This record gives sequence, structure tokens and C-alpha cells, in this order.
Amino acid sequence: MHSPPLSPQLLNCLTPEENTGCQHGLYFQDGERRVDYILTYHIKKPSSSRSNRQSSRFTDNAFTRSLRRGTARLGRAPTPQPRGDPEVASQDHSMDYHVDDKRLHREEFEGNLRDMGMELEKDEDTKTPGVGFVKIHAPWHVLCREAEFMKLKMPTKKVYEMKQSTGVGAKINTLVNKVTEPLYPNVEDNRTHNVKHLSYMFSREKQHLFDLSDRDSFFDSKTRASIVSVIVSSRSSMTCGPCNACYVLTFSCFVFQLLYEEWASYSVFYKYQPIGLVRKYFGEKIGLYFAWLGLYTQMLIPASLVGVIVFLYGCATVDDNIPSMEICHPKNNITMCPLCDRACSYWKLKEACGTARASHLFDNPATVFFSIFMALWAAMFMEHWKRRQMRLNYEWDLTGFEEEEVSDHPRAEYELRVMQKSLKKEHKTQKVLTEKEKLTCKDRLPAYMTNVVMMLLMIGVTFAIVFGVILYRISTKTALHMSNNPTTRSNVRLTVKTTAAIINLVVILILDEVYGAVARWLTVLEVPKTDKSFEERLIFKTFILKFVNAFTPIIYIAFFRGRLVGRPGSYLYVFESYRMEECAHGGCLMELCIQLSITMLGKQLIQNNLFEIGIPKLKKLIRYIKSKRRSFQEEEREKKLQRYETDHFLEPFAGLTPEYMEMIIQFGFVTLFVASFPLAPLFALLNNIIEIRLDAKKFVAELRRPVAARAKDIGIWYNLLRAVAKVAVIINAFVISFTSDFIPRLVYQYMYSPDGSMHGFVNHTLSYFNVSNFQDGKEPMDPQHQVEMCRYKDYREPPWSNTPYVISKEFWAVLAARLAFVIVFQNVVMLMSDIVDWLIPDIPKDISLQIHKEKILMVELFMKEEQGKIQFIDSMMPCGGKEKRNNHAPIARSRSIPHTHSHTHANNF
Amino acid sequence: MHSPPLSPQLLNCLTPEENTGCQHGLYFQDGERRVDYILTYHIKKPSSSRSNRQSSRFTDNAFTRSLRRGTARLGRAPTPQPRGDPEVASQDHSMDYHVDDKRLHREEFEGNLRDMGMELEKDEDTKTPGVGFVKIHAPWHVLCREAEFMKLKMPTKKVYEMKQSTGVGAKINTLVNKVTEPLYPNVEDNRTHNVKHLSYMFSREKQHLFDLSDRDSFFDSKTRASIVSVIVSSRSSMTCGPCNACYVLTFSCFVFQLLYEEWASYSVFYKYQPIGLVRKYFGEKIGLYFAWLGLYTQMLIPASLVGVIVFLYGCATVDDNIPSMEICHPKNNITMCPLCDRACSYWKLKEACGTARASHLFDNPATVFFSIFMALWAAMFMEHWKRRQMRLNYEWDLTGFEEEEVSDHPRAEYELRVMQKSLKKEHKTQKVLTEKEKLTCKDRLPAYMTNVVMMLLMIGVTFAIVFGVILYRISTKTALHMSNNPTTRSNVRLTVKTTAAIINLVVILILDEVYGAVARWLTVLEVPKTDKSFEERLIFKTFILKFVNAFTPIIYIAFFRGRLVGRPGSYLYVFESYRMEECAHGGCLMELCIQLSITMLGKQLIQNNLFEIGIPKLKKLIRYIKSKRRSFQEEEREKKLQRYETDHFLEPFAGLTPEYMEMIIQFGFVTLFVASFPLAPLFALLNNIIEIRLDAKKFVAELRRPVAARAKDIGIWYNLLRAVAKVAVIINAFVISFTSDFIPRLVYQYMYSPDGSMHGFVNHTLSYFNVSNFQDGKEPMDPQHQVEMCRYKDYREPPWSNTPYVISKEFWAVLAARLAFVIVFQNVVMLMSDIVDWLIPDIPKDISLQIHKEKILMVELFMKEEQGKIQFIDSMMPCGGKEKRNNHAPIARSRSIPHTHSHTHANNF
Repeated sequence: MHSPPLSPQLLNCLTPEENTGCQHGLYFQDGERRVDYILTYHIKKPSSSRSNRQSSRFTDNAFTRSLRRGTARLGRAPTPQPRGDPEVASQDHSMDYHVDDKRLHREEFEGNLRDMGMELEKDEDTKTPGVGFVKIHAPWHVLCREAEFMKLKMPTKKVYEMKQSTGVGAKINTLVNKVTEPLYPNVEDNRTHNVKHLSYMFSREKQHLFDLSDRDSFFDSKTRASIVSVIVSSRSSMTCGPCNACYVLTFSCFVFQLLYEEWASYSVFYKYQPIGLVRKYFGEKIGLYFAWLGLYTQMLIPASLVGVIVFLYGCATVDDNIPSMEICHPKNNITMCPLCDRACSYWKLKEACGTARASHLFDNPATVFFSIFMALWAAMFMEHWKRRQMRLNYEWDLTGFEEEEVSDHPRAEYELRVMQKSLKKEHKTQKVLTEKEKLTCKDRLPAYMTNVVMMLLMIGVTFAIVFGVILYRISTKTALHMSNNPTTRSNVRLTVKTTAAIINLVVILILDEVYGAVARWLTVLEVPKTDKSFEERLIFKTFILKFVNAFTPIIYIAFFRGRLVGRPGSYLYVFESYRMEECAHGGCLMELCIQLSITMLGKQLIQNNLFEIGIPKLKKLIRYIKSKRRSFQEEEREKKLQRYETDHFLEPFAGLTPEYMEMIIQFGFVTLFVASFPLAPLFALLNNIIEIRLDAKKFVAELRRPVAARAKDIGIWYNLLRAVAKVAVIINAFVISFTSDFIPRLVYQYMYSPDGSMHGFVNHTLSYFNVSNFQDGKEPMDPQHQVEMCRYKDYREPPWSNTPYVISKEFWAVLAARLAFVIVFQNVVMLMSDIVDWLIPDIPKDISLQIHKEKILMVELFMKEEQGKIQFIDSMMPCGGKEKRNNHAPIARSRSIPHTHSHTHANNF
Repeated sequence: MHSPPLSPQLLNCLTPEENTGCQHGLYFQDGERRVDYILTYHIKKPSSSRSNRQSSRFTDNAFTRSLRRGTARLGRAPTPQPRGDPEVASQDHSMDYHVDDKRLHREEFEGNLRDMGMELEKDEDTKTPGVGFVKIHAPWHVLCREAEFMKLKMPTKKVYEMKQSTGVGAKINTLVNKVTEPLYPNVEDNRTHNVKHLSYMFSREKQHLFDLSDRDSFFDSKTRASIVSVIVSSRSSMTCGPCNACYVLTFSCFVFQLLYEEWASYSVFYKYQPIGLVRKYFGEKIGLYFAWLGLYTQMLIPASLVGVIVFLYGCATVDDNIPSMEICHPKNNITMCPLCDRACSYWKLKEACGTARASHLFDNPATVFFSIFMALWAAMFMEHWKRRQMRLNYEWDLTGFEEEEVSDHPRAEYELRVMQKSLKKEHKTQKVLTEKEKLTCKDRLPAYMTNVVMMLLMIGVTFAIVFGVILYRISTKTALHMSNNPTTRSNVRLTVKTTAAIINLVVILILDEVYGAVARWLTVLEVPKTDKSFEERLIFKTFILKFVNAFTPIIYIAFFRGRLVGRPGSYLYVFESYRMEECAHGGCLMELCIQLSITMLGKQLIQNNLFEIGIPKLKKLIRYIKSKRRSFQEEEREKKLQRYETDHFLEPFAGLTPEYMEMIIQFGFVTLFVASFPLAPLFALLNNIIEIRLDAKKFVAELRRPVAARAKDIGIWYNLLRAVAKVAVIINAFVISFTSDFIPRLVYQYMYSPDGSMHGFVNHTLSYFNVSNFQDGKEPMDPQHQVEMCRYKDYREPPWSNTPYVISKEFWAVLAARLAFVIVFQNVVMLMSDIVDWLIPDIPKDISLQIHKEKILMVELFMKEEQGKIQFIDSMMPCGGKEKRNNHAPIARSRSIPHTHSHTHANNF
């Protein structure tokens, strides 16, 4: 479906007449003024308990009321209002008063908005019972004023041609463009433009610079909405003022249609996203999220390619691997010591052939290369993202914009607490405080203490659960070992591993939800001052809890399992009866890999996809069943709902935090243990291809259109990504050196091997145990083998040495080599990452050139304007013509030339 | 001398009349227009070869000429000029034409400046032969225009009171202020102000916001000069246009006087610097340097305090140190193996008593604490600097300022190369190229290759010299060992150590100068495009070379000396006759400390102080002798020189690079090996206290006043500091674990000691050697001792084991512990640094509040202005009074109210 590219004019919305066919309520009753913003509130419905319950969220008690009035006065509200003593007010607190008070407060608020120049239209008589709508329209002069205050950069009339490169580079470029043509979405974007409008901070004094011929489309719907939103939230400490909800109308215009077809559809999964369009409709913040997600997915392609190659290399070389060949060799009849006291019996090393071969898939030299590659990949990704962000900033005219915190004013909860505090103080000291109180550390101490305790408790719960699963594994294993059925026993390992991993997964999924709620509760307790601070604290806590939750079992397997097991004859026990578990022969890497893949795939399939697809579907189903029960008439009526009414029934936008969080945990899986699971990037890639379109669908169809927020970067998420990438380096170093057998192999090859080959490695890693050294009652019950000497995997002195069974010199040598590898790996990779960081400039060359060029053009433009003015004055003042020309301008300046719109226009262009 | 605080008005300069007494030439001939900028050039002096030589630096050949014309045309120059074929032009290239051409070019350039609105006055008839001066004055309207383009933030009339904290905090504050009163310089600064002017980007349309009552002082001299400088350099590819030099006049006004008394004087060494004043006079870039230096010095105070305490702790515990007690114990009669073959004899461990005790001073647990402390100190310093920088940015109204690269246009050398290239190409293809050429990697390849080769060569030279010093040390030692005089032999070690360290120091000092020159030469070869890129490349190269130069000998001693020595009976030799050197008993830490202190102190005393104080003094002396030879009349005449002439004789400002470089090398000494030399911060502190005043004197009295450059940060230096701090962590980790005996002691205490004490440690570190195992000819010649077994410091198997003399298990255990310590230390310290980084916000709380408050005030101001306008229009248009009020503004806006200066003033304030 190749629709022709659309001109920018068409991308703006249709006229009201064209729209009426399918859309109601996009305009005021007069059909001219556009609805830029919607506020909803509950209207008094005596019998409706639901409405009361919901509204009480906002008006808890007299404190809140006086607080809100206080806040309103903090702003520029012109209506002074005497503050009654809230202590008294709380006494005659009644339901009626309550509702009346709410209405009064809302009316005062609406008055404020009108004073700011906004135009309001109320609609209480809708087909949606119990909900009143306030439609807001921002007239032209308000838009201009606010755009100036917000320092919005708008395109000027001045157009310049972007230099097209010529020569070989251009030819290649054209070719690449032609090849990648099908990958681009069918929307007209900047890629095909050769001209660009110079942008400049909007200012009414420089109005003549801008193309204001079409005032309706100069500010697009997202900009208009965000301007109104800024005004609304500046009048109140809550985003929506005293109302319940606020949102922007879903415009069923071309942009929307295009987004639906070219973005929020699985059929275009292989295409780039139309990020420009997303930003145009949803604003920069959401645009940045999708751009980031897109880049991450794109960057996963090479990573998963290399990962697959590494995996295939492992598969291909499994037959050439000398250690596993030696283990599997038919003539090999090394007798291994029993793995537990009494119950277990001796076994032949040959039995471990399967695991040894499988281990090689993930434990080969290519893995080392791959983890270095992935560390650099992460650094590249960061750098690439910085560049992409810069490019988007430039394309979206955000280059000069300083992250001004719209939400810098205190949150309502904070104000409430401050109010309570100062009231208490006033009550105590019996005098009115002049200075504004604020929450000190002392006030927050209980909350902080709760936070620390709860966080530790939650982490403790995770540890306890992991430990529980370990106990389950040990006990089941022991129980199954006791069984006499040989088929059961051969299935022991597999059964135990799989069930344990699934239990872990389920626990992780449940705890994830719990932790999300706990983190939110803890953050509310802290009463952070601003929305931004609230969000950051929440993210930080959620991140820690979810990370610990997801990675504790994996870290246990990687670094602790099989470390403290003792030796045959003196195994270590927990609770005096459970032996610490050991990994299968061939290192723990295999088990780590199994655990990782189950957790990662499970989380992705269940949490991301099942939950995200399934639950909305379920909700829809419930809504459908409910509507079935409704009368047919009502259903009919619904079809004629105004646009703002249908939007009201969509789910409110809950922020991007869950989306980012999901991705960052995935990033953790992709980087943290990549040494043991080279297929992780591939699985992540597959997931993300679906994820992008899933999120897109959600944003387009299932959520209320959020207010566009400006943002230059992805904020705290970038720091978290960096932190994960940093931790990944050290974790991978430890996985390679301690979990895998890479270092022991190297040490054997270069220090002990008689011929420099790997032959004899298996023998070298096995220590001897004299069965006569078994303490009484610990020898195996099963008397089938007659052995004198059994072997076990450890570096210990043989029974015939002076110090039998103590740790041997080889152990220390291998340990030193392992630690040295960690140091070298960590520092080399960090250095390489720093070099990558340093080599790739943060601002793409072409963008920095472009920015520079634009600056020069702007100065030129002003210089021309300047000269035009001087000439104009020269012609106006013939008397001054003989004076020294250089002295003119300041005189003219201080007289302030009356430059009309048309005049300057004529002079300067 | 407590002069009363001065009001801001007084800080500006005196009127011309007041000045004439002591100053000439601050104003044009008319005595009204101020000289903002001086350009100098050489005027034709047929017999003066010196002038020709100097001028030829700037006019090498015809290429340069046409190049300069070309560049001039690239600007906004209105005078088109046909470009002659340079190939032809170069043929009739003569001296006369050359000079004429120069003059013509200069005149064209001056014309350009006049076209830009500048006012020029020439003075060729000065008392300084061969030099012509162009005095430039920028009239008011030019200043306004450029200030608007440069987006200078200027103080508005709007004043607001800074909130004074009340309560306990305020009382403490007052007390602290009273106590630290003598530490503040006697200048009025912001500290005492309670009000602050709101600043806003200067714009002629918003002129009414600014207090323009005194136009002469609205832009101060530094701002005026930098505005002129921007115009001058924008007209040419060289900073000074076609002239030889350009500078700003030294104003002998109050600012200058104050700087002289309260800053550039040793008598105020204990005071804070008057940074605001420095910035006012020299501009932000130099202000930032001194602010940085000041903060660094200030931060060194706690570091040196702790360092001294650590050192004293070492001194105090030297008698309780069990290992050195054991060595020094009179009953100890361990016979040690000879330290070299044949020549050396057996010795008693008791002889090492002195070094063992001295080693303890620097090798004790406090050292470990101190290096962690210093790593955190470095992180704190970085954070503090970020905050200080932010605060200065705020105080200096740079918050909105984006580092616009004034020097973003290509350097002359680059343009020349490009011109040459395109000419060559034109010559080859026989057609005129339309597109602008640029230097590709291919063009630069030879230069890059030279760079790499030269850098490697230089580093090789450093290594070779270090190796040479090692050989010197070994050979002298051997020679002295041979000597039979016992007193000579006892002085052997001391003599050798000291002379070697001094040789190293001298070599470092000489190579430092050489490397500076080499780095500059290499950077010139590279032909970087912009000044900024030139500077960065130069700094980078100089940094690497100087760092390698300063630290190679130290790194050798710390990590390589005494590592590869073999064992008695099979010592390792270089060149078959020199034994690799060993450290004295008790680790290499002592020697490292000696080397460090000699290098650091020597560098500081000789390079920083002797050179910086001595050489200017020497120059003055030479000048004085020269002037003696001059006729008395000339000397008399000199007294009446114009200000710009005396300034001409000062040394030109050469940039801040050498100052920063010196400090960063010092920072290296303070952080990199601090584990072995806790007194380093103290020495650095003492040096810096002098350094600040020394630099201040240089800037005030000995250099031409540089053009004020705006800068938000210290640029590349911050990154280099970070890099040094990062490297310091890992180097300190290695010093503690490998150079000191800290880890072996710990391992002994917790793994081998029978009673958990340090008793027996010395014995444990010494291996046994059976003298019968000496190969023939290697046994000591001196037959005074009859020994069977001697001891040596190493972890090797004893002669009676199965594998005599191979590395023992203890060695591997200690090595593993050492490596583990490195990993733990590095990661813990890095984590702690990151936490420090994360806990300390980059923007100080009060500053961010202030910035936020100012923004709100600004918006309020504009809103008021807005309403004032609407009311004004309402009163102007009585007919429109009945219309809806909200519709007024846009109409009024588009009509563009003729707001005169006085009118808006009346309405808005």
C-alpha cells in the first residue's frame, strides 16, 4: 500500500467541515475554535458512590482544601481569598460542603484560566453520566505569549538548501538509499528534503521572521496542547488542576492514520519507525523512547549475528575439543568419588560425557572474544545513542532548549505535608509563621528509615527465596538419589534443574509485581518535592529491586554454586543434612546458561508479551461483556459520542517508566552474563521487534493521547544503562575466569602440559582420594565397585603427600591466573570502551556543521535586517544624511523605530 | 593596608582627565573615544632586517596573499576583488611589491573594519621605531549589535534581594564569616551583596530593561575588547588580521590597582583570590584557571594534613613494628646470600635494620587508608570543581551561554594547505574547481605517520634513558662493591641512589623542554583545521610525552625493579655482565619514595620556581643592561610613552596551556603514587601557594593584557584530570599490593602465623639456599664466613624439597592475594568515587534555586510588561473597550506598538 508522500500542510488536520463526518467534538460549539485540551471532573451524582470515592482521592480533608487555596495564591492568581483557620474549618466538615467546596474551587480555577486568556467551554450534559468536560481553547495571542516564554524554537521563513554531497560518496549514498528504500516507512520525512527552515526562538518582536500566514497550523496540535498544559499546571500544584483527568484529543487526521498504518502495525516490522511523525503526534519525550528502542533493536542485529556465529563455532568444534574427547573416550575408566555421603555411589567419568560436550558449546575461546565484543558493543551503543539523540535534538529544533522543569513546582502531597508541619508549628508557638516551611531531613527520617529497612527486607526476601529453591533442589535430588529405579535416577538432574528454574521464574514474575508496588509505596512515603524527583526515586528503587530479583538466582549459580562443597569424605552440609550442591562435571557454565535462558525467555514471553497483549484483550472482553448487558439504546448512543467522550474511556497514559524498565532489565540479560549465553542478543532482538509494534499499538489505540513533553534526552535511563554496561564488564570477567574452565585450560596448557597440548587436562584437574580415608558411616552403601582410589574435581594434594587433601600449589597458581585475567580483562575492556567513547564524537560531524551554518545564516539574516533598518532611517531622516553615518544607528535605536509587520517584512526579505 | 570597600561604579575606570596624569593613550586624540583594542604592524624600515624577518613570518609567498584575500572574501566583506592567478603573481614576486602588498592588504582590512562600524585611529609616528599602531574604538551601536549577536547576558535594571537565611544556620554563617574575614581579599565582591541584578541576554529590542544611563560603563573594558576582537578575527583567518599583534590596554584604574595589591602579591598568600575581579579584568577563561588553581590548592590543605598525619603515624609506630624489630634484634644472626656472584659476600640481615625501619614509614596500614582517601579526595575535587564552575557560571551570567566557537573558522595554515591542494588539482585538471576542497585523511597521512613514529621514538628515547640510568646504577654499584674500602662500600647505596635520581631529574627537565618543542612541531605538521583543534592536539601530545617522561623512572622502580632477579646461584644478567638490580630489604617502596620526592621537589623548585622567577628576572636584567647602552635621551623619551607603547614592550600572552600542564603533572605526583609518598600533597600545597601569586604577578605585570575569552569550563583539562584520577586508582592498587609488603604481611598473619601475630614473618619471607649449590665460579670470593645455608628474600622451595628452588606454594598464595586485593581495591574505590560523584549534585542547591527564581522573576517581568501594554492600548483605543478583552492583544501585537524607551520604562517599572 504505497500511498503518495504527503506535503507538510496535509499532515495538519482537516477543517472542521471535513471532519464532522467522522469526528465530533474536535471544535467548540461555534465550529471554529479548536479544542486543545480536555479537563474532566465528576459532577454531583447523589447516588453514585463510585464518583464520591474517586473524588475523595483529591479532597481528603480540610488541610487539602486550604492547601490548594494556598497554592493557588502562590501563583499569579489575582483573586485574593481570606484563609480561614483550617482547624476550625475541619470541624464543620460535611459531604455537602465538601462537594460545594470542590465546585467552588474548580470555578475559581476556571476563572484563573480565563484570566490567563484561555477560552473555556463546559459540557456537563454529555451522554457519559457523572462526568463533566471542560474544553479549553488557547487563542492565538496566548499561544504566542507562552511560546515566547517557553522559548520554543519555530521554523522561520528563511529556507536554506542542505548541501548534497557530490562525487563517489554521493553515489554510494544514493545506492544505499535505493537498497534500503523498502526499509523506510511510507511517510514523507526529512530524509527527502533538501531544504530546511531555519529555526529561531519564537518571539513576538521578531514575528516578521516567521511564516504566520496560516495561524491555525503554525502551532501544531501537540504544541498547542502542551502550551495549555503548562498554563493549567502552573495554576495548580497538580497536573490537571482540581480536575480528575486531563488529556489531548486523538486527532483522526492524516498523521494519526499514517501512524496507524506505517508504525503501529506488525506488517511493517522490518521497517524503520517514522520517528518524526511519532514526535509530531506524541511529543519529544515519547519520540525519544521509540527512537531509543529502535536504535537498541537495530544495534541488537549485529550482536545477535555475532552471537549466533559464536554459538555455531561452539557447535562446530565440539568434536575437536580434547577435554570432552578424553572424557568420552571409551577407554577412559576413571572412577569418580561419590557425590554425597552414604547414599551416592562411585561413578565413571564417562557418564559425564554428555554434559562435557554440551558445556563446550558455551565454554570455548570464542566466548571470551564475544564478551569483549559485547562490552565494546555496549560502549558503541551508548555512543551511538548520544549521536542519535543529538541528531534528533537538531532535527526537532531542541538544540538551544534548556531542560526547564515544568514540573519544578512542588507536588501536592509535598505541599500538604509542609502545610501540616507549619500548622503544627503555628499551633505550638501560637504565632503565625512568616517564613515558608520546608521538609527537612528530620521530617523525612522515619520515611528514609522505612525505605532502607524495606529495601533490605525485600532483598532479603529474594535471597531467602533463592535459598529456598536451592534447598528444594538439594532435597529433591537426595530423595531421587535414594530411589532404586535407574530411569528415575538418570532423569534426576534434568527434572530437578527444570522444575527449579521454573519455580525461580514464577517467583521472579510474582515478586516483580510486588516489588513494583512496594517501590511506589516507599516513594510515596518519602514525599519527594517535585514530580521529577518522585519519578527518579521511584525508578531507582524499582530498578534495584527488580534487578536483584531477576539476577540473584543467576549470580548464585555463576559464582557461588559448587564453590564451597568440601571434598569427598568431608563434604559441607547445610542444616546438617543437605549437602551443598555441585555443578555437573564441566563447570557451572551449562547450568548458568539453562537458568539464564529460562529466566530470560520466560520473562519475555510471559511478562512482556502475554501480559501486555493478553491483559488489554481481557479488559476489552470484559468491557464487551459488560456492554452486552447494557441496553441497546445506550449502545446506540455511544456511537454518537463526541471525540472527547470516547477518548475519556481510553486508559490514561501512565508514563514511560514500565517500558524503559522492561528494556533495561533485558539489556542486563544481554550484557551481564553474555559470556555464558551468546544467544541472548538474538532472543532480545526477536522480542524487541514485536515489542516496538506492541508499544506503538498501545500508544496509538489504547491510551489517551498524553500531553507532549519536551525532552532532550532519556534522563536517568541513560545513567542506568551506563551502570549496567559497567557492571557487565566486571561480571563477564568473573564469569569467564571463575565459572568457565577457560583459565584452568590455559594454565594447564602453558604451565603443566608436557607437550603444550590439552591432552591430560582432565586428569590434571582431578585429585585423588583414598577410599580408606572415608570416615565411618560416610562410605557409599552401594558395594558394587571395589575401588581403592577415587577421583574428584579439585586441586588438592594426593593422599600420599605429606599434607594429604590440602589445597595444592596448582590451585593457587590457577587462582592467581584467574584473578590476573580479571584485572587484565576489566582494565583492557574499560580502556577500550573509553577509547570508543573518545574516538566517536558525541555530535555527528554533519550536524555540528549544520548547526554552525545555521548560526551564521541567522547572524547574516539579522545583519541584513539591520542594514535594511539603517537604510530605512536614512531615507526617513534626510536631515541626518550629512552626519557621520556610524552615529545614526544608536540614535535611531533609542528612538525605537515603529516597525510594522508589513514594513519589516518588505525591508528584510 | 585595609582600604575601604569600593562601590561598583568606582571599579570602572576614571575619566580621561583624571587619568592623564599617569596614563597616556587610553583615549583617541579627541580625548573622548576610548581605545578598546590595539593592532600593531611593522612599518617599512628599509634598513631594519629584523622587521623584515618578523614580517615575513606572515607573508611567506604569493599563496598566502591570495589565500588571505580569498579568506577575506569568505566573510561579509563588501568589496569584491579579482583574484589574480597566483602562479603568475608568484613570478613577479619582489620585496617592494611584498611590502606594498602588505600595506594594501592592511588598508583593505581596515576598510572592512570601518565598514563594520568601528572607528580607527592610526599612529605611525610613535616613539617606537618600526612599529605602527592602529587604535580601535567600538562605538555604542556596534557594541550593542555585537552584544546581541554574541548573546551576552547583561544585568538588567530589575534587582532582587537574595534571601538571607535566618535561624541557627544564619548565626553559624555569620560566625564563620567573621572568623574567615581575614581570609577574604579587601575587595567588594558579591559575598557582601544582598541584592543581585537580574541578567538577560542583551537585545536592542529589550533595551528598556537595561540601565543604560551610563553608556561608557555599561560594557566594561574587557567586554568591549572582546567584542572588537571578535569582529577583527571574523574579518580574517588570523586572530589579529594582517597585523602582527593585538592586545588590550592595561588599564591603570582601580581594578588594576586592586589586583596588584590584593592578588598579585606574596603578602596576601593566605587569602582567597578576588576571582570576580580577575574575571572582570582578564575575562572568564583566565578567571576559571585561577579559580581552579585556587580550589586545587584549597583542596590540598586537607590532603596534606591527612598525609602528614599518616606520615607521623608511620614515625610513631616504627618502634612497634614487629618485622623491623625482628630484623634489628641483636640476637638475630640470619646469614643472607650474597647479592651478586663472586664479588659480593654473605651479609647479616641485621645490616638491613636501618632500611627496614625507614621502610615502615611508608609501608604501613595507614598508607592503604591514605591511598583510598586520596582516590576519594580526587573524586571530591572533581565534583567540587564542577560545582564551583557552576557557581561561577551563574555569578558570571554564563548560564545560558553555549560555547560558541569563535575560533571555529579555519586556521591560516590550514587554508594555505587547502589552497595549495586545490591549485595543484586545478593545475592538473586544467579547470577551475567550484567546490571547496578540504584536507582528507590521505593528505594528512604523512603527517599522521610522522606523528606516530615520532611519538613512539620520543617514548623510546625516554625508555632508553631510563635504561641508561639503570645501567649506570648497576655498573657503579658493582664497581664500588669491588672496592676494598669499607666506608666507600657502606656509602655505596646512598651515593648511587642519589646520583641516579639527580641524573633522572636533569634528564626529565631537559627532555621536558625538548618534548614541548617536538609536540608543537608535530601538531604544526598535522595542519589542524581550527585553533581549538590545534590546541587540543597539542595539549594531548604534550601531555602524553611529559607524563611518560616524568613517570617512566618511577614506574620502573615501582613495578619492575627487583622482580626479575633470579635467585642466588642463578641471578639474571643483562648484557651478560650486569646483574638486574634489587631493592633493599624491606621492599622497593623506600626507593620509590626517594625517587618520587627528588623528582617532584626538583621539578617544582627548578622548573616551576627557578625558571618562572629566574628567567623573567634575567630578561629584565638583560633589558636593563641594553637600556644602559642606549642614549639617555631615549630613556627619557620612554617615560613619556603612550600606554599602548609601553604595553607593546610587554611579553605577549602565550595561552594557559603551560600553566595547566604544570599543574596536571603535579596532580599526577599527588595522586598516582600517593601510596608510597604521603607527603606529596604537602609539597604540592607549598608549591601552589607560591605558584598562584607568581602567576598572578606574571599576568598583571609582565604580560600584555590578553583579550578576554568567554569559557564555561576548563575544557580538555578536566578530562585529563579525570583520566589521571582514574589511572591513579589502579596504580595505587598495584603499588600497595605489589610494591609494598602489605599483602605478604596480611597473608602471613592470617594463613601461616602460628599465633596470628606477625612474629616469624621475616623468617617466612626468606627462602633457604644451600651454598654447595653455587655453580663453579659463582661462589663469593670472600671466604670470611663459613656457612652452609644462606637465606634470600623470595618464596621458593628449600634445597631439601623434591623440587628445590622452584617457586613455592606460598608464592602463588601471596600472588593470588595480591591480585585479589587489586581487584577489590580498584572496584571498591571506583564504586566509592562513583557514589561520591552521584551523591554530590553538580549544581549547588542554592544556585539551582536561584536560577529557577530568576527565571520566574523574568517571566513575571515580561508578564507585567505585557499587561502594561494591554492597559496602554486599552486606554489608547476607547472604541475597542467593549470588545472581548482577550482579543485585544493579538491585534495590538500585529500593529506593533511604537514603544519608545521612556514609554516602556514608565509602564513597566
